Amino acid sequence: MLSKSQISFIKSLHQKKFRKENGLFIIEGIKATTEFLGSAYRLHSIYHTGNLPAELKGTDTNIKLFEVKQTDLQRISTLQTPQGILALVHIPEEQAFDPGSLRQRFTLALDGVQDPGNLGTIIRTADWFGFSTLICSPNTVEAFNPKTVQATMGSLARVRIHYADLPELIAAAGVPVFGALLNGEDIYRTKWGNEGLVVLGNEGQGISPAVQAHITTPVTIPRRGGAESLNVAISAAIFCSELCRS
Amino acid sequence: MLSKSQISFIKSLHQKKFRKENGLFIIEGIKATTEFLGSAYRLHSIYHTGNLPAELKGTDTNIKLFEVKQTDLQRISTLQTPQGILALVHIPEEQAFDPGSLRQRFTLALDGVQDPGNLGTIIRTADWFGFSTLICSPNTVEAFNPKTVQATMGSLARVRIHYADLPELIAAAGVPVFGALLNGEDIYRTKWGNEGLVVLGNEGQGISPAVQAHITTPVTIPRRGGAESLNVAISAAIFCSELCRS
Repeated sequence: MLSKSQISFIKSLHQKKFRKENGLFIIEGIKATTEFLGSAYRLHSIYHTGNLPAELKGTDTNIKLFEVKQTDLQRISTLQTPQGILALVHIPEEQAFDPGSLRQRFTLALDGVQDPGNLGTIIRTADWFGFSTLICSPNTVEAFNPKTVQATMGSLARVRIHYADLPELIAAAGVPVFGALLNGEDIYRTKWGNEGLVVLGNEGQGISPAVQAHITTPVTIPRRGGAESLNVAISAAIFCSELCRS
Repeated sequence: MLSKSQISFIKSLHQKKFRKENGLFIIEGIKATTEFLGSAYRLHSIYHTGNLPAELKGTDTNIKLFEVKQTDLQRISTLQTPQGILALVHIPEEQAFDPGSLRQRFTLALDGVQDPGNLGTIIRTADWFGFSTLICSPNTVEAFNPKTVQATMGSLARVRIHYADLPELIAAAGVPVFGALLNGEDIYRTKWGNEGLVVLGNEGQGISPAVQAHITTPVTIPRRGGAESLNVAISAAIFCSELCRS
């Protein structure tokens, strides 16, 4: 049984402002809860309607467990169909980021991606292809948005998301910068070398001029049909696939 | 000014049942309206809040034009932020489909894809890569669902969507059948030949056993990281990209 104030506290976390204020975000479903429990994130509390799986029982006495009514779960859930379990997770403190860690590898960087579902799908895809870090410009949608978290399907627990001023980070990292643009070289003929940032832009506007100025290799996925553009998560996936092609 | 009955008629088209009953579906935005006007689809009517672009004026006297108030557009729109223009389009009659048209080319086939956004993104991606036809199993989500239409970004006007019993169609077409499965051969080493169907399955269950029985080449996108699976639209895009690699 949840009190009115507990319910309104958890509901407040549907909004970015209160997530930031309280340093907490919401995850839902057994899979996400299990994956976050086994990750570097710290869980704050778990709300479930009973039938808690064994692996979630008694794992950590610092995590408060609440058995709640289905109607209460519906109130606190961000989903139309709640999945029987919801947890609050601490937003990790921003760690110092070493730009040198971008050398000798490839890393995706997002410049102003706005759709939370797109960001979530990109995190899931990056995780599949083994990219452990994702760089986001400050105006990219928040990674702890419930729609983003849901679309990652648990991958948020494994991929480090670092928000940074892209021009500054690029200057500090000193690696080649590939940019997804409409007038670049053919992605299938690009010589990638062994390191670099791969920048994808905003859904409508693409890569901002300030970041475009730093691109060393503009790259294009050749168009054969009539669509004007590709969804940004689709472009990101094709870049990941090309970088991982053996 | 729209009457109450006009508003409730258009709102009824938000639901599949009434789209089917009336043979009409909704598109929104200038871009989609322009692209459908220039396509094989027939428009039924256009509802706009003024400032109709020149290319939409007087193009076809069979299309009824209504200037409506913003509040009315909000009522009939399927979007949270209506885009100033909404049109009703006739659902085309199902044409005879020649299985022989699947020879000497590659075509995507979806087996039970449920999410309307995924279907729309797949249609947009197929259009970008020049695939002019998409095959869908009967239990795949409806292509005229407003969320699907929106996610296609106008590409629905160019890609023919054909719903068909996949095992029957496969038998009639007599082409190789590639299937996106978790235990297939490496997509980067697949010998594609010059024709085939590429089957992608349901978001949770994958390809149904009845269709799996017809797969001649199971194909896998190699996993290097921790995610359990890829989003189906992401997988579809990587298959399209590999098929179009020059």
